[in-house]
Amino acid sequence: MDPLSRIDSVLNQMFARAQTASAPPLLGAAMRHAVFPGGARVRARLCLAVAHACGDDDPAAADAAAAAIELLHCASLVHDDLPCFDDAPTRRGKPSVHAAYGSPIAVLAGDALIVLAFQSLAWGTIAHPMRLAPLTLTIAQSTGMPSGIVAGQAWESEPNPNLSIYQRAKTGSLFAAATISGAAAAGADPQPWRNLGEALGEAYQVADDLLDAVATPTETDKPVGQDTALNRPSAVRAYGINGALNLLTSLAKSAADSIPDCPGAEPLRALIAQEARRLVPKSLSHAAA
Amino acid sequence: MDPLSRIDSVLNQMFARAQTASAPPLLGAAMRHAVFPGGARVRARLCLAVAHACGDDDPAAADAAAAAIELLHCASLVHDDLPCFDDAPTRRGKPSVHAAYGSPIAVLAGDALIVLAFQSLAWGTIAHPMRLAPLTLTIAQSTGMPSGIVAGQAWESEPNPNLSIYQRAKTGSLFAAATISGAAAAGADPQPWRNLGEALGEAYQVADDLLDAVATPTETDKPVGQDTALNRPSAVRAYGINGALNLLTSLAKSAADSIPDCPGAEPLRALIAQEARRLVPKSLSHAAA
Repeated sequence: MDPLSRIDSVLNQMFARAQTASAPPLLGAAMRHAVFPGGARVRARLCLAVAHACGDDDPAAADAAAAAIELLHCASLVHDDLPCFDDAPTRRGKPSVHAAYGSPIAVLAGDALIVLAFQSLAWGTIAHPMRLAPLTLTIAQSTGMPSGIVAGQAWESEPNPNLSIYQRAKTGSLFAAATISGAAAAGADPQPWRNLGEALGEAYQVADDLLDAVATPTETDKPVGQDTALNRPSAVRAYGINGALNLLTSLAKSAADSIPDCPGAEPLRALIAQEARRLVPKSLSHAAA
Repeated sequence: MDPLSRIDSVLNQMFARAQTASAPPLLGAAMRHAVFPGGARVRARLCLAVAHACGDDDPAAADAAAAAIELLHCASLVHDDLPCFDDAPTRRGKPSVHAAYGSPIAVLAGDALIVLAFQSLAWGTIAHPMRLAPLTLTIAQSTGMPSGIVAGQAWESEPNPNLSIYQRAKTGSLFAAATISGAAAAGADPQPWRNLGEALGEAYQVADDLLDAVATPTETDKPVGQDTALNRPSAVRAYGINGALNLLTSLAKSAADSIPDCPGAEPLRALIAQEARRLVPKSLSHAAA
């Protein structure tokens, strides 16, 4: 099974366990709306790729880690889209969750997705229960306080956030969770995998800032120009377009160089080079070539 | 240490681990605002009381379960108070979190408290790691879909919720988590403890409905008359005041009768009788005598 189908299949299994006939129907529908169909599932694919590179001795544990990370990412999108934050009417080419189901159900859908993420970890580690605590702690640290994605979003409410701390929390942390938990789910030493996740996370955030600054509406399904409109910290605002582009290239190289010795290092390096090319907005690809 | 001080001390320990100098200050302050000073900490005290009745062989695990339940309860209050739900200006005699810090930080504070709850369980079960999965699953089930407190809140967005399913999810579920996880944290068989939690949870919900219907402003710090104003399901609206009062008495009796044989059954029974008397609104206590 290809990684995207594997991730969707696991997510469907988790939903099947959470959504019995006695569940409130609107909340159930809103949770599915937030998760299916997915985006690129980048973080979950990264988690599975690292687990695979480390031998993937317990695919159920890797699946659970990948699903948890994807569920937390989707939860953060649902809450970030709320009227009190970005007030985004659409997401992935369809109405955002609050636009389709109202803000109360959108708040609750994010909450329930966070809970489902931690539940998934407990379901998926039955064969290796000693892996549950490290996976829970890694993924919780990348989600909550002091430096997870929720903390990252909270920096937007602070008067003078430090760009690097903000971006590392808002985006880098869940990428770091993806590589660290991919290794931990496969029983490998997770620490050597932190740099890969952090560098990739920073690269994705810089790419996102570039897209926001230069993309045409056909190139992205997100509203553009939001960083300036909402006065959000951004690599383009800090370093200019060329500076941000150079940063992206150097982060992708540093990510590939950081991959520790392991059975699957080479294919993983190739995958990262491919992703790095995909990240450069099309209108700038001549400049990065 | 008395149970309330023990709970506050554990909550402070959990916060100390989550709130380093690099954390976003407003979010950190909002999370503390949501948790300190606490209410009666009823669910957390119940969890510790059951762990104690079962021998409390690992106080750190019981502490973690109690803290997780209290953090999830506080998270649900923060989100339920938001303008898109109850729009409550105050909570426990001070401004609600969104009134003090704004809706964005209030949404994030709830999210971060949910994450901290699951993190606490992983921190607290180092001595008995095999207890982490059952505790995580019990507490997640009582929080998320299909029948936890988040699902309970979602029933308020459905056109014709079943009163019993709604109340069991919205209130009963976290009380059931308190008794079940108290037993599980102490290494006892948790299943015989489910009935106690469910009966107590239903009793608290009925007491809350009675308070909403008959309390004077000096008797509660919550706004009254909200169930009718917001068209919420309520035992008083379904059965009248006397009917709800009879239900409360019978639930308290059924809770006390359900306590399984264990070293601490007698003091626990006394504690429940005392709580049951406290639950009856003062203006009705002659009717329940």
